[in-house]
Amino acid sequence: MLILNRTQIVSLLPQVDLIGSLEQGFVDYSQGKCIVPPVGELLLERGEVHIKYGCIRDERFYVIKIASGFYQNPQLGLASSNGLMQLFEQKTGQLAAILLDEGLLTDVRTAVAGAVCAKYLAPKDVDCIGIIGTGTQAKLQAEYVSSIVGCRTIRVWGRNQQNVVEYQRQLEGLGFCVLIADSVQQLCHDSRLIITTTPSSEPIIKAEWIKPGTHITAVGSDTTEKQELDSQLLAKADLLIADSKEQCQHRGEIAKAFSGNHIRMEEVSELGEVIAKGMGRAEDEHITIADLTGVAVQDIKIAESIFLAAQG
Amino acid sequence: MLILNRTQIVSLLPQVDLIGSLEQGFVDYSQGKCIVPPVGELLLERGEVHIKYGCIRDERFYVIKIASGFYQNPQLGLASSNGLMQLFEQKTGQLAAILLDEGLLTDVRTAVAGAVCAKYLAPKDVDCIGIIGTGTQAKLQAEYVSSIVGCRTIRVWGRNQQNVVEYQRQLEGLGFCVLIADSVQQLCHDSRLIITTTPSSEPIIKAEWIKPGTHITAVGSDTTEKQELDSQLLAKADLLIADSKEQCQHRGEIAKAFSGNHIRMEEVSELGEVIAKGMGRAEDEHITIADLTGVAVQDIKIAESIFLAAQG
Repeated sequence: MLILNRTQIVSLLPQVDLIGSLEQGFVDYSQGKCIVPPVGELLLERGEVHIKYGCIRDERFYVIKIASGFYQNPQLGLASSNGLMQLFEQKTGQLAAILLDEGLLTDVRTAVAGAVCAKYLAPKDVDCIGIIGTGTQAKLQAEYVSSIVGCRTIRVWGRNQQNVVEYQRQLEGLGFCVLIADSVQQLCHDSRLIITTTPSSEPIIKAEWIKPGTHITAVGSDTTEKQELDSQLLAKADLLIADSKEQCQHRGEIAKAFSGNHIRMEEVSELGEVIAKGMGRAEDEHITIADLTGVAVQDIKIAESIFLAAQG
Repeated sequence: MLILNRTQIVSLLPQVDLIGSLEQGFVDYSQGKCIVPPVGELLLERGEVHIKYGCIRDERFYVIKIASGFYQNPQLGLASSNGLMQLFEQKTGQLAAILLDEGLLTDVRTAVAGAVCAKYLAPKDVDCIGIIGTGTQAKLQAEYVSSIVGCRTIRVWGRNQQNVVEYQRQLEGLGFCVLIADSVQQLCHDSRLIITTTPSSEPIIKAEWIKPGTHITAVGSDTTEKQELDSQLLAKADLLIADSKEQCQHRGEIAKAFSGNHIRMEEVSELGEVIAKGMGRAEDEHITIADLTGVAVQDIKIAESIFLAAQG
């Protein structure tokens, strides 16, 4: 039985074809090959714990992920989010590995999903990636998406100016050119590939700000409350993609637009279908939007990939 | 973070006051101090996985147990059941320990619950413990119950004669005197403390076989299907105990007797109440029955006890 800590997992990540692995996972998901029971939840006084688990039928492993958020932890010098993933053999139930990733793999698989969306849906010749937000996802999306679209110029906007400057400093340390946008409107004006990564509960991007030929990946909203995109913008889009149509009907941007009668679910395609059909932008001038709420198959695939890389 | 394997856990068990720890757990449970969300379940082609989790409010840990049953495993030379327990800090979500007990602690906490029942409900001067069944629980109940009632004579009955003889050999190796009963009726005639440990789906013990002054602990049935005791016997009992009244209304012996209108739930007491009040047998001639279906607080308490013992 293999036990890997966060440092070991970090060193294995570059050896793994995360894009290919997650693409296959999304395809399997859209083809109905996944078993994903309801999420387990434990609500405590200072935090909450989620247990996400499932498998791809007839593959080697099932994966159980335990993820927690304890929001007073930073006062104690601890990260607020934490987690681990465990792989078990589907044929025997034997524990194969414990990945003590402390939540890293959840962050990475979310960023890789953003890169997958960019691979299929970003316009040609992206000369700047617009990032809204300055947190962990804002950094990881820049890293993973830039590797796909071949652009290392970031235009960033965030509510808190101190965080924006810190984001610029960190990303420039990684070799990015980081431009700070004065407003979301300016960022939208100047960026044809935009990624939203905030926990906002009010729309940040207005429909009229988005120019033809833009792709947006919305990562921030994964609940019924959160919303980053004006529902009018989804109504205006030429192509709407959900990581999971079932889940996006209840959570995230699509849920908001659907419940407000701005879109119909029949207009939404699933990411796994887009990948399986090799679909992309039908027209250069199209506006495309991908809504990522996070699905268990991403956990399953990234855990399996790390395990296989560790086995050499 | 502490990781213990099965061998290490086995060596720690004798250092732990399991009876005291589980008694406290049952009391906490009956006083409504536990948070126990619904059990998670993953059904696979060759096996099933259950995720049981929860905590005692305001105590140090929450515990997540992953238990599996893969019934073709013995053909591969592997145990059919397996499992592990994990302890996390309630204040921060930090992982404190992984107990790779392979299901041992679940077996032990079930046997210890039997010992707790015997402590409060067994008649005085037990001269033989009647055990029905020959599996893991049949062995562990003999070990843990004998330590409480101070009797090392076992009267055993099992369907399969080869297993009965093997049981006798193993228990005699542990210093027990083991008598083989010709029939369940004979065992009931000769035993004033009886423990049933089978997965039977038909009653094994008839009401008329049980003499006044007998205590029975029924361990085998934990589902809606399984049943070891004739419902008439529950109707005849002077005291009925459930480990969890809520759970026993839907699973186990009490559920069968309740759904068949042989008893009312108001006649059932909860084990934690019995312990808290120091209740026992009101009359020597009473027939008492404890129905154990297994509650998460047992996992929480035994995991915590092993952790504390390992910390010295």
